[in-house]
Amino acid sequence: MTKQDIQFDQAGKLRHFLTIEGLPRQTIIDILDNAENFCTVGARTVKKVPLLRGYTIVNLFFEPSTRTRTTFELAAKRLSADVLNININTSSTSKGESLLDMLRNLEAMHCDMFVVRHNQSGAAHFIAEHVAPHISVINAGDGSHAHPTQGMLDVFTIRKHKPDFTQLRVAIVGDIKHSRVARSEIHALNILGVPEIRAVGPHTLIPREAASLGVHVFHDMREGIKDVDVIMMLRLQRERMQGAMLPSEAEYFMQYGLTREKLALAKPDAIVMHPGPINRGVEIESVVADGPQSVILEQVTNGIAVRMAIMSMVLGRKQEA
Amino acid sequence: MTKQDIQFDQAGKLRHFLTIEGLPRQTIIDILDNAENFCTVGARTVKKVPLLRGYTIVNLFFEPSTRTRTTFELAAKRLSADVLNININTSSTSKGESLLDMLRNLEAMHCDMFVVRHNQSGAAHFIAEHVAPHISVINAGDGSHAHPTQGMLDVFTIRKHKPDFTQLRVAIVGDIKHSRVARSEIHALNILGVPEIRAVGPHTLIPREAASLGVHVFHDMREGIKDVDVIMMLRLQRERMQGAMLPSEAEYFMQYGLTREKLALAKPDAIVMHPGPINRGVEIESVVADGPQSVILEQVTNGIAVRMAIMSMVLGRKQEA
Amino acid sequence: MTKQDIQFDQAGKLRHFLTIEGLPRQTIIDILDNAENFCTVGARTVKKVPLLRGYTIVNLFFEPSTRTRTTFELAAKRLSADVLNININTSSTSKGESLLDMLRNLEAMHCDMFVVRHNQSGAAHFIAEHVAPHISVINAGDGSHAHPTQGMLDVFTIRKHKPDFTQLRVAIVGDIKHSRVARSEIHALNILGVPEIRAVGPHTLIPREAASLGVHVFHDMREGIKDVDVIMMLRLQRERMQGAMLPSEAEYFMQYGLTREKLALAKPDAIVMHPGPINRGVEIESVVADGPQSVILEQVTNGIAVRMAIMSMVLGRKQEA
Repeated sequence: MTKQDIQFDQAGKLRHFLTIEGLPRQTIIDILDNAENFCTVGARTVKKVPLLRGYTIVNLFFEPSTRTRTTFELAAKRLSADVLNININTSSTSKGESLLDMLRNLEAMHCDMFVVRHNQSGAAHFIAEHVAPHISVINAGDGSHAHPTQGMLDVFTIRKHKPDFTQLRVAIVGDIKHSRVARSEIHALNILGVPEIRAVGPHTLIPREAASLGVHVFHDMREGIKDVDVIMMLRLQRERMQGAMLPSEAEYFMQYGLTREKLALAKPDAIVMHPGPINRGVEIESVVADGPQSVILEQVTNGIAVRMAIMSMVLGRKQEA
Repeated sequence: MTKQDIQFDQAGKLRHFLTIEGLPRQTIIDILDNAENFCTVGARTVKKVPLLRGYTIVNLFFEPSTRTRTTFELAAKRLSADVLNININTSSTSKGESLLDMLRNLEAMHCDMFVVRHNQSGAAHFIAEHVAPHISVINAGDGSHAHPTQGMLDVFTIRKHKPDFTQLRVAIVGDIKHSRVARSEIHALNILGVPEIRAVGPHTLIPREAASLGVHVFHDMREGIKDVDVIMMLRLQRERMQGAMLPSEAEYFMQYGLTREKLALAKPDAIVMHPGPINRGVEIESVVADGPQSVILEQVTNGIAVRMAIMSMVLGRKQEA
Repeated sequence: MTKQDIQFDQAGKLRHFLTIEGLPRQTIIDILDNAENFCTVGARTVKKVPLLRGYTIVNLFFEPSTRTRTTFELAAKRLSADVLNININTSSTSKGESLLDMLRNLEAMHCDMFVVRHNQSGAAHFIAEHVAPHISVINAGDGSHAHPTQGMLDVFTIRKHKPDFTQLRVAIVGDIKHSRVARSEIHALNILGVPEIRAVGPHTLIPREAASLGVHVFHDMREGIKDVDVIMMLRLQRERMQGAMLPSEAEYFMQYGLTREKLALAKPDAIVMHPGPINRGVEIESVVADGPQSVILEQVTNGIAVRMAIMSMVLGRKQEA
């Protein structure tokens, strides 16, 4: 069984959501279409649907993240699920065995879904490989590997503005090497048929395998964003950086910060994206982050709808069965 | 736009609840009347009404307070709202810009209300000035400025026992200088037409602007509580005190602690109030705190009803619109 | 009034659940029968019943325990109650008076139930003695005294496999001296008429009063588990052990660890139980913990049903009244 296959149950329905890599194009389209319906829920006064009433969703966070936990908690509550927040100090569960015992216990309590955040790549896969058949696992970010719900909300946001993926030129700018967000975005864009994906950043922050991911590498930002339809800025993960990979924040901003002046090189109707939280004045100028081409806050809104869509699809499959 | 005006929307309806200062008398009466209805909810077996089902209320606590957070969380849950608790370490969000980005994100997630607690005066106002039009802000205590829901529950409790505010003599005793509770109480009592409000405490704990607040200052407690109808004791905020403002707890109790002996100087049917948590033996004698004239626990009960009233009024205005 | 009596209200109905000691056999049977009904709730897609809608249940944890808190939170949510989690640092509430003030406040907020966890024996009793008449208290573990919901889920699990308690031989193995679980188990088994209860462990870990509890003491494990129907392993509470009570983990495992080889001495259909979390390779061999005779995960599942039964019984008594 390959890593991708584990995401589907024996009837071929989506059971886990661990990575975008290897997903069929139709699955991605189904999630996007489904998320459209949930967009209207968030805008209503009563932002709640009873789809997952009586289900128990566990936020299993081995890496603290108020922001990401909040989006999953809101999505689950608006689907009427019960939510348990469990924060685990990885230092105390470093033994694989006790992690498995914890999973066995939560399964025995008839929990239905684990939303997993972990600083080690592969953690969500590992958990998905070991859970009982009635459990679904959602990867809420594992190490520098994948952050697939972020990747989905990004392509959802692009589709709202640029419906034909096969006509797009997309630039991803910044610390691609350490970014699970970038990896998930690249997979989604590739599967949806985007003909030109560019990775823009300094040598030290572009992974060696970039070419094999089907992206074009640019070290000069002005060249990299010339005539693109979409600019996806990445957060400069200062905590991930070790030692002398970068000269200084000021110089980084000079070279790779998105300014109005650089933005003028992209297409006039290009949209500007960022997974947040933004470092104003480091990777993006405030006037651009808050400007008319920015869709950064739309991404946040869409994130709830996309997560509701994925949660209801993987758990809803049992109701249909 | 003055600070008071921000609390009302363009249709003249209450949108935020930041301070009692400057509120029209009728608004205060409306809240009190509304809270009467919610009093019955708390006493029922099923303590829940569906008024705010599908709304998302965020407790945004920049200053930890289990007690206050609990009252708001209970009020929101009994209105059937979804509640998110977010505790923010102020040291990590000291930059105003990142606070605003956090607000923008919560707005984009279609949250409806921020209940804000902050150790800096003006924080709730600042947030209210910067939130999107669909958001309401409740001030759950900002620095030494205001704690308006506490002020409201205090006058609600007084009205239960002494319905005619225009006949009352009220003494507020203790650390008035550092007390947001005292400020909110004084504004509410003034607006409701209480003819005599007394501020009782040592020179170091009475603010210089006391006279301009319309209160009579007493440094001798026996004189200060003579013939009053209501005694509002304040908590001695030890953590707020710096250096040599007070001699010793024992001496403070001697001079300003409410004892049975001192209480005898007030009217025979005077009520004793305290916002809690009480320091027994420091600002109040246990036998008084637990005695027949104490309404301290009624204040707690009423606090839930008053908060339900305010929450449902500011959010309910959208349903009517 | 004796300690047992406090658990019943004046109409003779179960009001608190503090200890199994002294409970009438019929009360235990009623809880077990009730829990059978809730077993089916957990297995349904919609794992929720509206029995406690509008009730407020407070998890009052003076000792941190994500695991136990989770089981009570799930049980309460599946009964549709509102849940408040309050974690109290005992160092800051060491004064008995401020604990009582906190209780008074939660009562005044119309909370209905306190689920209490405390590292001091007798804490839940103390709280039950001091709460208002409308409050029920559940002991979720107090010091080394009692963990009665654990004891109930254990006998519930036994009954599923061995319905006739009067025919059973049960061995409890390990650190009985410091185990509130063991105490609660022994009381439950005695009341249900189990004719032979064995306490198996080293001299240092068997309490002197073991005989008075009606158990047979064995220091040799092979003798202790010979021909038993049920083996209840205890967790080696390393944090409770002081100094030189035990030689080494390896030697403990040699003498008292449950291995396949030792298990063969029990009856062929003996079941293996453990309250969790298990220390694999310390008190139990993995192959036994995960083997066909292990009912450890069934215990977890049953724990939710038993807690739902107890919660709905003590609070439901008010609806009938």
